[in-house]
Amino acid sequence: MTGDGAFTVDASRVTFGRGCIAEVGDRARALGITRAALFSDSAVAQLEVFDAAQRSLRAAGIDVVDYIDVRVEPTDESFRSAAAFATEASPDGYISVGGGSVIDTAKAANLYATHPADFLEYVNAPVGAGAPVPGPLAPHIACPTTSGTGSEVTGIAIFDLLSMAAKTGIASPALRPTEALVDPDCTGTLPATVVACSGLDVLSHALESYTARPYTHRAAPARPTQRPMSQGANPWSDLGCGEALRLLGTYLARAVADASDSEAREQVMWAATLAGIAFGNAGVHLPHAMAYAVAGQVRDFRPVGYPDSEPLVPHGMSVILNAPAAFRLTAHTDPARHLFAAARLGADTADAAPEDAGTVLAEHLMTIMRQVGMPNGLAGVGYTDADAAALADGAWPQQRLLANAPIDVDKPLLANAFEQSMRYW
Amino acid sequence: MTGDGAFTVDASRVTFGRGCIAEVGDRARALGITRAALFSDSAVAQLEVFDAAQRSLRAAGIDVVDYIDVRVEPTDESFRSAAAFATEASPDGYISVGGGSVIDTAKAANLYATHPADFLEYVNAPVGAGAPVPGPLAPHIACPTTSGTGSEVTGIAIFDLLSMAAKTGIASPALRPTEALVDPDCTGTLPATVVACSGLDVLSHALESYTARPYTHRAAPARPTQRPMSQGANPWSDLGCGEALRLLGTYLARAVADASDSEAREQVMWAATLAGIAFGNAGVHLPHAMAYAVAGQVRDFRPVGYPDSEPLVPHGMSVILNAPAAFRLTAHTDPARHLFAAARLGADTADAAPEDAGTVLAEHLMTIMRQVGMPNGLAGVGYTDADAAALADGAWPQQRLLANAPIDVDKPLLANAFEQSMRYW
Repeated sequence: MTGDGAFTVDASRVTFGRGCIAEVGDRARALGITRAALFSDSAVAQLEVFDAAQRSLRAAGIDVVDYIDVRVEPTDESFRSAAAFATEASPDGYISVGGGSVIDTAKAANLYATHPADFLEYVNAPVGAGAPVPGPLAPHIACPTTSGTGSEVTGIAIFDLLSMAAKTGIASPALRPTEALVDPDCTGTLPATVVACSGLDVLSHALESYTARPYTHRAAPARPTQRPMSQGANPWSDLGCGEALRLLGTYLARAVADASDSEAREQVMWAATLAGIAFGNAGVHLPHAMAYAVAGQVRDFRPVGYPDSEPLVPHGMSVILNAPAAFRLTAHTDPARHLFAAARLGADTADAAPEDAGTVLAEHLMTIMRQVGMPNGLAGVGYTDADAAALADGAWPQQRLLANAPIDVDKPLLANAFEQSMRYW
Repeated sequence: MTGDGAFTVDASRVTFGRGCIAEVGDRARALGITRAALFSDSAVAQLEVFDAAQRSLRAAGIDVVDYIDVRVEPTDESFRSAAAFATEASPDGYISVGGGSVIDTAKAANLYATHPADFLEYVNAPVGAGAPVPGPLAPHIACPTTSGTGSEVTGIAIFDLLSMAAKTGIASPALRPTEALVDPDCTGTLPATVVACSGLDVLSHALESYTARPYTHRAAPARPTQRPMSQGANPWSDLGCGEALRLLGTYLARAVADASDSEAREQVMWAATLAGIAFGNAGVHLPHAMAYAVAGQVRDFRPVGYPDSEPLVPHGMSVILNAPAAFRLTAHTDPARHLFAAARLGADTADAAPEDAGTVLAEHLMTIMRQVGMPNGLAGVGYTDADAAALADGAWPQQRLLANAPIDVDKPLLANAFEQSMRYW
């Protein structure tokens, strides 16, 4: 195999700062939007940030149609409903105010309203046809209200395909929002568990992108413009990852412990944006691939702080519970990178030998997980060793992510990784 | 004054890697270009990189019209000639292959061919009217062949206004090229002086952006979309600056000393891109403002390694000769930042007190300047103390840059800074 000789990076326009949600009207108008579809969910629609967005859009003379029926953990069905709304409402631009579910739903609605197609057409192979998006979408301004997914700066939309009971997604540079407005004032009212789970999602975005198979170890694409967004670790994503890890090592525990620590919550939100830009140009791997199965096969775990009454492993929790085991398996591929990441998170790595890299990083992750109240491994959310094979089957369709790992992954390795994730302390 | 509460950052799509110039055809086609204006200068047009760009464009079925009359150090006259060519040739996209002069000329040609106007209309105030660009330009892929200006990722085009014998420019987000293709193979044949001068320009981009007046100390714009590109230091630009300084501290002297040190030349080119993204979102200040006068009032200095037979202070040289004096003047505003920058460049700052910051940074800059063969201050390019007042007059029109300094600047301060820049060792 001849590896790729170049990497390609993209970033949206990002505005960051307290109160910047008030800029949305002026920015929408500058993008030529006259009729905006404003996406949110029923919880966020109760918050001041949603009112502020509406006021700003109307003050700019923009016609606003609300869509607040976004489902937390979207499905193909909820994506289709949103697309039907958009097709009917015919907006010339999209504004999303909410977490990753809201932003992802607006991306999907924009996609199917702009370039109608059979639903599976654009969905990632092998689940869908993985067809390229045929052209640009309408402008979209994404305004995240959690410090988590990074969806505001990526071209990825994730959903549950109900017929297969599997999480999958759509990935295309065309889906990346035109602008992101990141207002840390939104995070002041988030419950501690939400800050912890979304912050650990961010942490794993940064760790996975930093340790992903280097872009030079992936085959060059047939045409340069087909270089995938999950192109592997590269000098651009490395930079954002390193800073996100440093910020999370310094501020995450503080942001979880004290909702009034606005400095800490602001810095965690900036880390989320940086890690989002990084993973949008590098890709995640094992912990996220495994997380799809952990969330999908949940039995009766219900986290505190999440309003939904259905059993649910929050996304960030489903990711981080696999992380210590996963990085133990990948550390030998590049001990220096794993040690550097641990050091950025605050671990003392001064006397660590290369062969200790996996242990040092895994143990530091466990320390952080305990600090912010995570369960003790997959056993803490209801799994046992007897589930490992089924979890491996559930993660196996995530080939886009598994191929981005620095090691070759087969089903026995996945099953072993799940077993090693059951109990950490 | 109420400072600005948010910062806004933008970055182009960037592809980086050896040989990536061969991607230009596929990328141009993906942008919808069918007839490309290929900009270069007569020297670069002799190089393999120019042929490679032409081959790639033609292989993609794109009609190519060459414009290789770009003047090194462009003027309003040369910008107008390029715009007249573009208006006549009617391309639907622009490819620039060359240094900052070539890329800047393609930006200007694209601007005036797309949105015709009186030449001074878009030129920065107070020299021009500083009118906003009324809409998007045709797609432009910028392919830098020097590791210097960062023009491939900024919305700035610089030229000499002949009637005023002054350097000025056009600054608008609309001018930022759609994509940058950064191919370090281009740098293997650059003479040492060119690598030194352009590398020191990069170094000063990073230092100036990092020490610029913080964005929170600039008044908020009347409308958020009018936030200037020279918005001051911010967490995004800080990150690129820090990495660029680290790379330059490690690789610049090696890249200058040995043209065959391809690792060093590649890393300096990556530093140039990072620093370009940073200063395009933060802005430079004193050393660049002073440089306009140093270059503009040259008498008979002729650098080795530059083919032009006219007297010339290369841009990077005209910048760095002011830098030690300038940072001595700004260090007190934020000693920690100035010490951090010095440390990233390789200075030993372990025992440095805050009040030493200016001296520590200035002396480390002098060490680097001597390593790469810079003249000993402005005296080394023909100036004397008697020129300080005229130089201050020459720098004074650069109000956009002077306002971005962390200190208040008046003419006596400028004259003093020029005097302190005459002789360093």
